[in-house]
Amino acid sequence: MRISGLQQRFIAIRSNKLFESIVVAVIIASALLVGAKTYEMPPTIQSVTLLLDWFISAFFLLEITIRFIAEPNKKHFFRDFWNVFDTLIVLVSLIPADDTDLALVARLVRVFRVLRMISIIPELRILLVSLFKALPQLSYVMLLMFIIFYIYAAVGATLFEDINPDLWGDITISLLTLFRVMTFEDWTDVMYETMEVYPLSWIFYLTFIFFTAFAFLNMVIGIVVGVMEQENAKERHDHGEPNLRDLSEKLDALQRSLDELKSTRQ
Amino acid sequence: MRISGLQQRFIAIRSNKLFESIVVAVIIASALLVGAKTYEMPPTIQSVTLLLDWFISAFFLLEITIRFIAEPNKKHFFRDFWNVFDTLIVLVSLIPADDTDLALVARLVRVFRVLRMISIIPELRILLVSLFKALPQLSYVMLLMFIIFYIYAAVGATLFEDINPDLWGDITISLLTLFRVMTFEDWTDVMYETMEVYPLSWIFYLTFIFFTAFAFLNMVIGIVVGVMEQENAKERHDHGEPNLRDLSEKLDALQRSLDELKSTRQ
Amino acid sequence: MRISGLQQRFIAIRSNKLFESIVVAVIIASALLVGAKTYEMPPTIQSVTLLLDWFISAFFLLEITIRFIAEPNKKHFFRDFWNVFDTLIVLVSLIPADDTDLALVARLVRVFRVLRMISIIPELRILLVSLFKALPQLSYVMLLMFIIFYIYAAVGATLFEDINPDLWGDITISLLTLFRVMTFEDWTDVMYETMEVYPLSWIFYLTFIFFTAFAFLNMVIGIVVGVMEQENAKERHDHGEPNLRDLSEKLDALQRSLDELKSTRQ
Amino acid sequence: MRISGLQQRFIAIRSNKLFESIVVAVIIASALLVGAKTYEMPPTIQSVTLLLDWFISAFFLLEITIRFIAEPNKKHFFRDFWNVFDTLIVLVSLIPADDTDLALVARLVRVFRVLRMISIIPELRILLVSLFKALPQLSYVMLLMFIIFYIYAAVGATLFEDINPDLWGDITISLLTLFRVMTFEDWTDVMYETMEVYPLSWIFYLTFIFFTAFAFLNMVIGIVVGVMEQENAKERHDHGEPNLRDLSEKLDALQRSLDELKSTRQ
Repeated sequence: MRISGLQQRFIAIRSNKLFESIVVAVIIASALLVGAKTYEMPPTIQSVTLLLDWFISAFFLLEITIRFIAEPNKKHFFRDFWNVFDTLIVLVSLIPADDTDLALVARLVRVFRVLRMISIIPELRILLVSLFKALPQLSYVMLLMFIIFYIYAAVGATLFEDINPDLWGDITISLLTLFRVMTFEDWTDVMYETMEVYPLSWIFYLTFIFFTAFAFLNMVIGIVVGVMEQENAKERHDHGEPNLRDLSEKLDALQRSLDELKSTRQ
Repeated sequence: MRISGLQQRFIAIRSNKLFESIVVAVIIASALLVGAKTYEMPPTIQSVTLLLDWFISAFFLLEITIRFIAEPNKKHFFRDFWNVFDTLIVLVSLIPADDTDLALVARLVRVFRVLRMISIIPELRILLVSLFKALPQLSYVMLLMFIIFYIYAAVGATLFEDINPDLWGDITISLLTLFRVMTFEDWTDVMYETMEVYPLSWIFYLTFIFFTAFAFLNMVIGIVVGVMEQENAKERHDHGEPNLRDLSEKLDALQRSLDELKSTRQ
Repeated sequence: MRISGLQQRFIAIRSNKLFESIVVAVIIASALLVGAKTYEMPPTIQSVTLLLDWFISAFFLLEITIRFIAEPNKKHFFRDFWNVFDTLIVLVSLIPADDTDLALVARLVRVFRVLRMISIIPELRILLVSLFKALPQLSYVMLLMFIIFYIYAAVGATLFEDINPDLWGDITISLLTLFRVMTFEDWTDVMYETMEVYPLSWIFYLTFIFFTAFAFLNMVIGIVVGVMEQENAKERHDHGEPNLRDLSEKLDALQRSLDELKSTRQ
Repeated sequence: MRISGLQQRFIAIRSNKLFESIVVAVIIASALLVGAKTYEMPPTIQSVTLLLDWFISAFFLLEITIRFIAEPNKKHFFRDFWNVFDTLIVLVSLIPADDTDLALVARLVRVFRVLRMISIIPELRILLVSLFKALPQLSYVMLLMFIIFYIYAAVGATLFEDINPDLWGDITISLLTLFRVMTFEDWTDVMYETMEVYPLSWIFYLTFIFFTAFAFLNMVIGIVVGVMEQENAKERHDHGEPNLRDLSEKLDALQRSLDELKSTRQ
């Protein structure tokens, strides 16, 4: 009986507006703390940041515990992606930040506490989910793009390896170099270098740029068309708008009524 | 009585086509003057520009005064954003341009008189207002983008600080460096430098580029879809076009009429 | 009578398929000749190109003359933009290419004979006309963009003139530098240079990039929306598709017929 | 009779799910092998790769043979583009990879075996076909773009040849330089160089950028509009959606019925 009372209290806390605001405030504070640590600081302030860090860790642990106890069905808690996400981030950032061996790892891990901003603001969560939902539609265009990249990287690594191993040493480095060419970043430097040995190698770069630009354009259009259709479908559904098929059926009904009227008259 | 007569005169002036043209001409002249001052000039011409500058200041002051007096309700005058905007620009550009201490500030302030071009041309005003109205719709995508930037900047400032403090010294500098990477401006130079210490740091840059490009694309599509819907809604409203729902209702009315006819017949 | 016979013959020539093909062939030949001249050539071939050049000039002159004589109403000939365009190009390219004083000008002028490709292929002519028709719709966005550029150039030329006169010497050079910044071409080099004197000058560049990117995006969307509307309007017109208003009127007529039927019955 | 039995067996093999999976696996293995060869390898592993290479070649030859024998009508086999494509790739990659004279060619040719991924996955085949189908619609915009490039290249090669023959030596090199300018890759370096001789040459670059950007934008919009229309048409066709014309015809029929009813009544 006592536990149930505690649970009900925690449910009340969880849905409390003030509690939610405090959580957001602490997340923002942890983000600012992460930013502040990148500046040079005198030792006194550094110890203050360590203290703040412990307070934030403790608060997050408490918050997760409250949310866990407030959950009526414990199994459902870990079925929700964002609960698992939050728990993982909180647990992992318990690594002590003052330990010299793990100091760097601990600092990096604390950076990801900023990600809790996404899990706490529903609009950001929806945005991210819709972004990831758009990905599978693009899987074949991305596969095609990868095949283009792979073939050009293999040709590049075969032909240009001896010209500049830093750019064309093996297929991984070649893939990175080709990504650089796709972003147009000093791509002519790469080209002029190989053109001294193979004067016709501009064909390699120009066809690559055309193919990837073409595939990329196709990808963007694919996303745009997908989003537009989604929007249209949503709008239609929202307004319960009658469509042309509905109208057509009504007209057929009218015609039938009229035919009946005529037949009874004759 | 005398003041009312003056006010009516000013109202007449304010809506006079010639007066409006003179104002536009003076604004263009002030823009040209601002441009001319950036060239080397002999002292005689320099004193001419100073004279012109005083004439423009005086004219703008006169114009604002006329518009202020012409306004029947003085309170409404300062409720209009563009009136406040014009008054501020005119007042602030009264700082003497020949004062050696404030010479630079005075010159800079005079540049903003070119902005009056926007307040005087209604089409530009509408354009700017519609641009700012599009911003709130994008607030969540921009927040998401800022979170991505912040996390990568914090990681960059933590890991790469010792490699190149000019690029990764603290979180502000890191944010600037990441913006540079997003514009693809010599981003491989930044990457190759850190890859010498952390050979896998290309993952940092590539994931950053993918995430920001993805979020940016989403932002652009959001604007496009928003603008399209706006256009469609406006067009429909402009033409008083009947929609499918109207047609559906008319069909229902017809069916009812026909049913009545049939029932009276039997 | 004799002239009328000649005219009729020329009209026949003008609309002859073979004649048209020969004109296109000569234009392509003149384009290839222009390209060939950019290579180093032995003297014998050079004199061949001079001969070819004279032949092309003569042919174009003959063709224009035929088209002029074939035109029934001489006044209409020069009212057509493309006729004036062709005549000008042909006349201007009569400057002798072997004259040493005007050699360079003559060579340049001959390049523009390639433009006749546009006037001879109707599809290209339509494309170009539709491109130019899209421009006025964009005039206000372009004016806004110019105002943004002008203000930033004036500020840049005022503040940064002493730092690097090659980039910020006067307002013209500053406009060019800002265009370079807009294309992201080594814009960080420009920024880092001024940040050494004014550490906050990154605000200047970032706000400039945001404003121009925003205005540019708006311009692109404006074009896209305009083109889409045009396409939709054209399609509707092409197919004589009935619209919702037509259907609504037909329904009203039906209702009226039914009401009449009912009233006659009672 | 015996051949027919073999053929039926091969048809069974061809449509076998397991056989298809093995073919995909071998293609992926051949892709990985191509990638692996770009790394430094000890001689023992190198001989393993040679062995694997022979196995893959043999397997592909076997697969094509099965597919050829399984085809009832041998003529139809070579009418299918993808069959010809596969056969060519397989035949050409039979060049021995250990022959020192042809080693490089043999290695390059093996890279293209990765392309068989496209012919084996139907979705990629459809994607590629639809990409190529979009090309003819763009032919005139591309021709216009080429004319712009050609004219600017001819002007550039005429005026700037003596300034930097590496960039403006002849029309081919000039075309490449202009493509570089279009991608904004260090375009200001190219411009500043010519501006030292011709201070007004920035006009050349800026107009070129405007024209190509404008034509490019037009091309992209053309593709987007084309794709959208295709999507709309497909959707309408898929759902057998009645259109406004159908509704209009039904209304006309109704009106006629009603008129008949009225006329019989009078």
